[in-house]
Order: sequence, then structure tokens, then C-alpha cells
Amino acid sequence: MEMIKIAVAGYGNLGRGIELAVRQNEDMELTAVFTRRDPKSVKLLTEGVPVYSLDDAPKHKDEADVLILCGGSANDLPVQTPELARYFNVIDSFDTHARIPEHFANVDKASKESGHLAFISLGWDPGLFSLNRLYAETILPKGKSYTFWGKGVSQGHSDAIRRVKGVKRGIQYTCPIDDAIEQVRNGSQPDLTARQMHKRECFVVAEEGADKAAIENEIKSMKNYFDRYDTSVSFITEEEFEREHSAMPHGGFVIRSGLTGDNEQTPQRIEYSLTLGSNPEFTGSVLIAFARAMKRLTDMGQTGCKTIFDIPPAYLSPLSGQQLRELML
Amino acid sequence: MEMIKIAVAGYGNLGRGIELAVRQNEDMELTAVFTRRDPKSVKLLTEGVPVYSLDDAPKHKDEADVLILCGGSANDLPVQTPELARYFNVIDSFDTHARIPEHFANVDKASKESGHLAFISLGWDPGLFSLNRLYAETILPKGKSYTFWGKGVSQGHSDAIRRVKGVKRGIQYTCPIDDAIEQVRNGSQPDLTARQMHKRECFVVAEEGADKAAIENEIKSMKNYFDRYDTSVSFITEEEFEREHSAMPHGGFVIRSGLTGDNEQTPQRIEYSLTLGSNPEFTGSVLIAFARAMKRLTDMGQTGCKTIFDIPPAYLSPLSGQQLRELML
Repeated sequence: MEMIKIAVAGYGNLGRGIELAVRQNEDMELTAVFTRRDPKSVKLLTEGVPVYSLDDAPKHKDEADVLILCGGSANDLPVQTPELARYFNVIDSFDTHARIPEHFANVDKASKESGHLAFISLGWDPGLFSLNRLYAETILPKGKSYTFWGKGVSQGHSDAIRRVKGVKRGIQYTCPIDDAIEQVRNGSQPDLTARQMHKRECFVVAEEGADKAAIENEIKSMKNYFDRYDTSVSFITEEEFEREHSAMPHGGFVIRSGLTGDNEQTPQRIEYSLTLGSNPEFTGSVLIAFARAMKRLTDMGQTGCKTIFDIPPAYLSPLSGQQLRELML
Repeated sequence: MEMIKIAVAGYGNLGRGIELAVRQNEDMELTAVFTRRDPKSVKLLTEGVPVYSLDDAPKHKDEADVLILCGGSANDLPVQTPELARYFNVIDSFDTHARIPEHFANVDKASKESGHLAFISLGWDPGLFSLNRLYAETILPKGKSYTFWGKGVSQGHSDAIRRVKGVKRGIQYTCPIDDAIEQVRNGSQPDLTARQMHKRECFVVAEEGADKAAIENEIKSMKNYFDRYDTSVSFITEEEFEREHSAMPHGGFVIRSGLTGDNEQTPQRIEYSLTLGSNPEFTGSVLIAFARAMKRLTDMGQTGCKTIFDIPPAYLSPLSGQQLRELML
């Protein structure tokens, strides 16, 4: 069996999630990790895989079939993905929804010019949730779609908490509201406000002597982040923070509530849900499955930028078309 | 806008479901119905659509972009799909799992020889459930998959009931067992027997003077159909049968319970569920979405037989790639 060679740029939670996912797939191997840190300081879980400086990535372009970029969407990926698409077939999980068209155009141009293939905005949202929105909305054109997230950690909201004066450590969980999910499931197609769909639970370790009432007030009234939601703030010890809040669970639901039939009165519901013990490990697993599709499509000579919408599902699986028809159809 | 011309072969529950789905899609029109009955006896819901004898279908091959076949998997489709693929681009919902490879080969040969495109085994199972098994099993290779059906009417089991002596009318509902679903959701990856996953509820109108105890006993001990399940048999009046059992609800769940991470101890769950007010109306809606993909792929010159695994999701939607990236990713 020819192994699919995977390289990773950035070795944080997601990079490690990818490394762990590679181990679960017999046709994959991790062949390089690129980092902005001192390569000598990076200790992988996998023996014998070289760690290089990200600046040297172009020199190692022949060491990977697919390079997966693990940087942030705000500053890293808009630069890194088009740049590295000049040397590698690349996958990213760019998640700034409003800037996807611009990012797509940049990556498409770079990858076409260099003869590489690129997948952007892969993961679960954007990614699997987007895919389910597409299938469900196309199959049930008369209806309404709802996306609920959580219970899970929002990185952006956690960062916002940590910028508040007097906060030593902080984490924020986005929680879907059960009553809203029930209303959607029963087919009533409600109009729901942000506050009706999600609540926000914050856990904070305060600096010694900090004004906790002021911290709570500043968090709850923070524009865009918290003011439109019911938010709770709990002050805990650093020990409890370490013990209870270091896992990275997440998940959510995409629900399409539609109507079919004569006079459009027959209720139909499609629901997709994820319950994730670890967000980065799951996201890594998604990216690795699409890396296999990327290898197949590059073997067929495809280039340019694609999204999850463009990729035939069969290419993700290690099974052949015939095996898939026999075992999974 | 160029309309996609849809023809239907067979005008029963599924044929009518397709007709109703066409109405919900602005880029589609129903252009012909083929029937084995006397065409004059078939009254459509849509004005002005011609009804032809199925034997005359080849004469009307230029009147449809896509012909959707609504016959049965046991006897009709194995003959009809390859035969009509000589004249049309065809879609069927062939659901005899064990015979899919043989059916695929026959349809592939016929459609390639005639330069047409064919999609087989489309709907929700096989179909959307198969698709979700593929994505979920590929993303979480270490894990276990479960498919639960219902609550919904099983046509095969209802037919079996109706063959029992003394049964005037009968219907069977397949019901998933809540406790089994809970066990799967909590991540324990149980081994479940058929009896542990589903129960069977039968409603029977007995002939006058029939031996009800004998009917109940014969149903419950029927090999393969009922003997491996907990089965209930309720005798009801014909009026109640008409009133309570003429809708065709169905649905089910595909659940993948997987493990990721160092030592593979992180639970991850992917769940897809359908709650359908009408099985044939929903199936019709699925087939119509794939008819759009078929039109796009035939415009690109593709021929031969494909399944849901081979079709890039974007082709199902009336939106352009750019619109999908802006609105749905």
C-alpha cells in the first residue's frame, strides 16, 4: 500500500489532533511538522518525524502529499494558505465566514498558478455542518434551518474574557437552550433570537484582590460577545479551573424543519448532531479523511481551490467504489 | 431559466411524492408520466402533463432530461432500469441491498453503451443514511455504527401480515427501542441483537369469524420477519384502520460512536436522524434534488452508473458555487 504523506504546519491542539488521527488510518503517515517556534523545542507524540522551521517549508515541498495548516483564521491563514499553496497541496480550516469568498479567490489563484490542489474551510463548522445545511436545504426547499452550537468552548469568547481587567484565567462555554431545540424539533419553525437559542457560561479565576462584581458586570455587558445573551459568570479557584476545564468538548446540531406535500402541510425533519469529547481531535480526524480525497484528486490531476461542497464523498474512504456499494450503500 | 424536465415511470405513492417535490423547485417541471395502467385511468395532481403507456416510453425519450423510476425492487427495477437507461438518464431507488452490485453492473453497462447517466439506490436508505455511514465511518475509523429505523411502516412486513389467513387488512410499524438508542448514545458501543434494537407493532383488521389467536400466533412466529423480534399484534376495526393508519410516517437514526486521541479514549459521536411525516413525499424530494445534479453532470458529458457516493454535493443545489460559499459554508 502506498502511504499518504501528511505534513502539518503549526503544532498546537489541532496539530496534535491531526497527528493522533493519522495513527488511526493505516494508509497515512506523518512525515513533517513545520513550526514558528524553535524546532528543537517541539516534542511530538510520534517518534522519528522531523520538525522544521516554517520558513524552511518550501525546501521540504517534496516530503508531503498534503500539508495541513493549523494557524489562526484572523492573521495566519489569510497569508499562509495562499503562500504555501505555491509549494504544497494544502488544507486549512479557515473559519471567518465573512471572508471566505476573498480567501477562496486568493487560494484558488495561487494553487492554480502552481498546479496544486487546495481545500479551505474544512472541519465541522465550517465543514460537516455546512455540508448538512446544503443537503438538507436542497432536499427540503420549503423550510427553515437552525444551527445550535455546544455545549462547547468558544475560543473567541474565552479570549475576550481574558482581556478583562482582574481576570487571571477564563473560559466560556456556549450552551444551546433546550427549549429552543424542542420548539424547532416539533416543527413550529419559530423565529428565534440569539438570546433564545444560546446561553453563555463563563468560568473565571480572578487575580488576587480583584473586584469580582466589576469583572462580572464588564463581561455581561460586553458588546457583541455577551450583551445579546443570558450570561452566567462563576468565579472558581485555579485548581478547579485546571481540573474541570482543560478538556475541549464541543458539538451542536443542524436541524432542517421542512414541509412537503399537497398544500405543504407534511412535516419533515432532518437533523445532524455532533457530540465531541475533544474538538481538536475530531477536527483533526475530519481533515485527515479529506487529505485522502485530496491525494486521489491530485493523482487525477485536479488543481485549484475546492470546498467540502465540491468533493465526491467516495474519495474520502479508503474503500473502493465497489466495496462501498457492497458494504455501505 | 432553463427548466429541468422530469418524467416519472409509475404513478403510485412515490410517483406522487416526486410530482409534489417538483412543484417546490422553481427550476423543475414534470413533463411526462409513464404507467403500466391504462393512461386514461391515471389522474395526476398537475394539469396538462401527458400520461403515456410505459411501453411507449422510448418514443418520448426527448421529452425529459431525467426519468425517475418508481417500480419495485423485487421485480420491476432489475429489468426497467437497464432497459430504460438505453433511452433516458435514469434514477431509481433500488433497495435490495444484496443485489446492488449486480444491479449496478447491469445499469452501468446499459447507460455507458447508450451514452446516458444513471443513479441507482437513491432515497434515504439506501441513500442519505448510506452517505452518513460513509462520512462518519471514514472520519471516525475506530468505532461502531448503528442504524435504527422508525417509527415507520415497513412495506415488506405489512405485505407478510396480509398473506396470513383471516387477515383482511394489516400494517406493521418498525419501532426503535429507546433503551438501545440511549446505550449507543452514551458511547458504550454495545453489541445489540435484532430484538434489542427494534420491536414490531402490527395492526390487523380480521375477516369476520377469523381465529384471532391463530392469526396472532402465526404472525409472531413468522420466520425472519417476526420471530427474532418482540412483536405486538392489535386487532382493530376497519374504520380505525382507515382513520389512524393511512399516513406513511418513517424515519430513523444513523449513529457513529467512535474513539480518538492518545490511547483512543476520547468519545466522539456523529448522529444523523430523519423524522418524516411522509416517507414517499420525502423520498420524492431526495430524488428531485439528485435529478438536478444529474442534469448538471450530463451537461458535462458524464455517462454510466453512479451512486450517492460519487456525486459532488454542490451539484444538488440550485445555487452557484460562489453563492454556496457565501451563504452556506
